[in-house]
Amino acid sequence: MDNRPIGVFDSGVGGLTAVRQMQALFPNEDIIYFGDTGRVPYGTRSPETIIQYAKQDVRFLLSKDVKFLIAACGTISSLLPREWSDRLPVPYTGVLDAAAAAAVKATRNGRIGVIGTPATIQSRSYHKRLLALRPDLEIFSNACPMFVPLVENGYVSPDDPVTGTVAEEYLAPLRDAGVDTLILGCTHYPLISGIIDRVMKGTAALIDPGRETVLAAEKRLAAAGLAASPKRKGRSEYYVSDLPENFECALNRFLQPGHVAAAQRIDIENY
Amino acid sequence: MDNRPIGVFDSGVGGLTAVRQMQALFPNEDIIYFGDTGRVPYGTRSPETIIQYAKQDVRFLLSKDVKFLIAACGTISSLLPREWSDRLPVPYTGVLDAAAAAAVKATRNGRIGVIGTPATIQSRSYHKRLLALRPDLEIFSNACPMFVPLVENGYVSPDDPVTGTVAEEYLAPLRDAGVDTLILGCTHYPLISGIIDRVMKGTAALIDPGRETVLAAEKRLAAAGLAASPKRKGRSEYYVSDLPENFECALNRFLQPGHVAAAQRIDIENY
Repeated sequence: MDNRPIGVFDSGVGGLTAVRQMQALFPNEDIIYFGDTGRVPYGTRSPETIIQYAKQDVRFLLSKDVKFLIAACGTISSLLPREWSDRLPVPYTGVLDAAAAAAVKATRNGRIGVIGTPATIQSRSYHKRLLALRPDLEIFSNACPMFVPLVENGYVSPDDPVTGTVAEEYLAPLRDAGVDTLILGCTHYPLISGIIDRVMKGTAALIDPGRETVLAAEKRLAAAGLAASPKRKGRSEYYVSDLPENFECALNRFLQPGHVAAAQRIDIENY
Repeated sequence: MDNRPIGVFDSGVGGLTAVRQMQALFPNEDIIYFGDTGRVPYGTRSPETIIQYAKQDVRFLLSKDVKFLIAACGTISSLLPREWSDRLPVPYTGVLDAAAAAAVKATRNGRIGVIGTPATIQSRSYHKRLLALRPDLEIFSNACPMFVPLVENGYVSPDDPVTGTVAEEYLAPLRDAGVDTLILGCTHYPLISGIIDRVMKGTAALIDPGRETVLAAEKRLAAAGLAASPKRKGRSEYYVSDLPENFECALNRFLQPGHVAAAQRIDIENY
């Protein structure tokens, strides 16, 4: 048993979808969340900038004595070098491994779609991970740069015409390619899974990397004897790098009622 | 005569609309442009973060021996304290003064609309400036957070259905309020002035702060004997804080053909 918190981080608010899954599935775990709201978005920046920021995020969470690190962000997961994360003092995971494994398990026809930010898609990280698991897969991908601002501005209801039109443009090529499995490769996207499912006409299983990662992380923790005591009630703390007010609005949108709390601001440039 | 360059800066690419106006109206002037693409967007950040970033932007341009500084960004213009800019070694202007003056000149019915980023609208800077010029004005404003990502992702053609739908939502209250003048309080917005004009049903004069500021700046330079020699052909240089590649695509979108050039990356954190 280890009741120290799990550290979860993201470029902004998207990683809260993973926090929501963790709170629902493993309510006994403490969580420290860091959202880099002062430097969001990462997904349109250069790889070297993203890596520099991600390393600072990790150092902040390590200063909070976390027992495990989850990069709940498709962009960070795609770019943080394994040579670096392998040397961290606690186990680290991005969202790619678990999502790729779930997609390989879900597909029947071997045609998998991947959507994400421009940085995630350009990195081809999902391509590489999927093909390493099963070399005969056919993979189709598309960057969806408008999805993050649309989600953050609340265009999320299942019949939203704006997000629906943009989603049709992004997803039609994947639907036409006949993918039967679609990885939502950015942690914002589960909030519009209803729209995505409608535009895909129900033809593809949607893979939520945050959910898959939380399930895989807890399995790893349990195997290592690092899971929290089962009966306790976990607490979540939230830290951000810009004013907490906007973030607290996002907490309402991303989390289940009863989990919404205040956030504290830190100066991430000091880490 | 003074052939030193004019320094123009913005949180990203939006300020290029002012550069385009400068190149068209005063082709004899040299321009040094800095776009803070590594830290964009400013408009959703806290005032103190925006001010810290803007001060670094100014220090970089001063290192390039500019004769005049233009913050071609509604957000920076709204927030940079006058006490600070008044102490700079060269004249400085944001886009507010000239835009407010042009709006007051344009209105017939005294009802003026202002649109901009959340930070610009929350600062109420246009309100204060307009009322200082004419206290009996009625001012109606609305934040339009989706316009910047829409412009940056190319949803700019006059009949674009996505931007049209979002614009209807943002602008209907202003149209219904009967404004006859609308300040496009973010330098991205002139790129969708066709859509804005259509949604406003041609009922409002659109004020482009970048254009008004360029006209006012050149008048100030001429009065102080600081304008460039009239017959020379000015040059423009572009600097950014993230990888230049994406920025160079934006140059194509924002500038007239023949003005597109390469950009250089600098480390803005050093200023």
